[in-house]
Amino acid sequence: MIENEQFQTWIDRVDTELVRYFSEKDLTCNPLDRAMEYTLLAGGKRLRPLLTLVVVDAFGGNTEEAIPFTLASELLHTYSLIHDDLPCMDDDDMRRGKPTNHTVFGEAYAILAGDALQSEAFQILVTSQHPILSPDRRLEILKELCLAIGRRGMVAGQVMDLSSEGQAYDLDHLQLLHSRKTGGLFRFCLRLGGHLTQLDDEAMEKLTAYADAIGLLFQVVDDVLDEEGTSENLGKTPGKDKEAAKATFPHLMGLDGAHSFADNLLEQAEQALAGFEKKAVKNLSEIARYIRHRDH
Amino acid sequence: MIENEQFQTWIDRVDTELVRYFSEKDLTCNPLDRAMEYTLLAGGKRLRPLLTLVVVDAFGGNTEEAIPFTLASELLHTYSLIHDDLPCMDDDDMRRGKPTNHTVFGEAYAILAGDALQSEAFQILVTSQHPILSPDRRLEILKELCLAIGRRGMVAGQVMDLSSEGQAYDLDHLQLLHSRKTGGLFRFCLRLGGHLTQLDDEAMEKLTAYADAIGLLFQVVDDVLDEEGTSENLGKTPGKDKEAAKATFPHLMGLDGAHSFADNLLEQAEQALAGFEKKAVKNLSEIARYIRHRDH
Repeated sequence: MIENEQFQTWIDRVDTELVRYFSEKDLTCNPLDRAMEYTLLAGGKRLRPLLTLVVVDAFGGNTEEAIPFTLASELLHTYSLIHDDLPCMDDDDMRRGKPTNHTVFGEAYAILAGDALQSEAFQILVTSQHPILSPDRRLEILKELCLAIGRRGMVAGQVMDLSSEGQAYDLDHLQLLHSRKTGGLFRFCLRLGGHLTQLDDEAMEKLTAYADAIGLLFQVVDDVLDEEGTSENLGKTPGKDKEAAKATFPHLMGLDGAHSFADNLLEQAEQALAGFEKKAVKNLSEIARYIRHRDH
Repeated sequence: MIENEQFQTWIDRVDTELVRYFSEKDLTCNPLDRAMEYTLLAGGKRLRPLLTLVVVDAFGGNTEEAIPFTLASELLHTYSLIHDDLPCMDDDDMRRGKPTNHTVFGEAYAILAGDALQSEAFQILVTSQHPILSPDRRLEILKELCLAIGRRGMVAGQVMDLSSEGQAYDLDHLQLLHSRKTGGLFRFCLRLGGHLTQLDDEAMEKLTAYADAIGLLFQVVDDVLDEEGTSENLGKTPGKDKEAAKATFPHLMGLDGAHSFADNLLEQAEQALAGFEKKAVKNLSEIARYIRHRDH
């Protein structure tokens, strides 16, 4: 992860809360709890919670009060990973350096674990206490989430990804695919931080522009790593995209082209921050640069 | 369905709105939209929306304003059917008299259709307009839904159902399984009607007791029909429970025992209505009797 002590402290807090969330046991649901916990606690960069916390901190909010809300994005991301890894979808055996959920718990429990993670994410956003969040603003957060993950959001992205295999595509198609599959949740996480600190519309728009740039950047780098990376640093099998004839940025514009495109997106992300105060610019830039230069 | 002209009018309105909900097309999501639409519009009793509308009507609410909210329970029910029918779960080929979702669209799109139906259900409850529903009460509705469908609700019920195959069980276990798998959503639908008409806690408790009785009744009759019914009237393959050595009421208490148990539950449901005004008692009793005596 990024070498930043403050970020690491927040990530540790998120991890602690994720563990606590699963500490309540119910023996009748044991296989479900274990399957949910397994992928959720298998590590992961916790980048989505971090995005929310950096915004909350940068705009004078209380990160500790925001922590419970940040779990939701990690649950949703994990649900999408578990379902995407299934044999009928991307058919992946390794994830976060460990065997994928269905290889350990079987397909039925993997599907149900994903289903329950989606519901639990909503439950967290609906029920977590917050001293200054109004019911109306909470409903706005929920609305933005639904748009980010539903049939015109994250699920649509996965559908486009699956149906693109072996098909012709252009840059617009690829950008739409990834703005849905990855970008929507990034946008949600950054705007969630904005809602929790009652940011005005102008600041929210800047955050959204930054989110869209780093969301796409994340995916361009993901595609590049799938070609250049090793399973050791990735924690998953590289070269899968090419094998499945997936739509990727390196395939569309070459590896060099993809690197230049990533550099441009990093610049766009940093430009979107213009006018924010120093702390916001520093921390959000650091995350954007990490996303550009990460090796896993 | 129940022979009641008013009920049929409401069910027709629900069907019209479901069709309208899917009328907005996006070609990039075509396989997803088609898969979602397929099972959702394949028929079905629309019992869950009906439960909400009967309550709204009986307590002086406006059913037309409630219609959009009722779609959510039908989407959630359909998501659970699509996932439960998958080869790795109950492995069913027929549902609502038609080939199951995955046999038509493949497993990947069936899973994604279920995923998106869950998100869309939340979106409907978060965004549908209503003239008297306060943000706080809307959040209460969402909270009750999360509890009904999550890892201690509907998903937990399916987990208990799968893990009960071939295992010893008692009546308590079977009741808990079904209160989660079916009962929770019934309870949600009835209480949703109560929220939309601003019922007080005492009336809500009566509705909840009625919901718990008919939820369990529904499942006892389902188990009986699985033994006594034909695929023609059921729209799905009978005898599947016995084949899979599932936990069922007839298996636990014999067919006669299951029939008596169902009669008792019908009585309990009707007793729960004591003190409600005439229209509520009449319509809710009619639904309970239909659930007891239905042949599909």
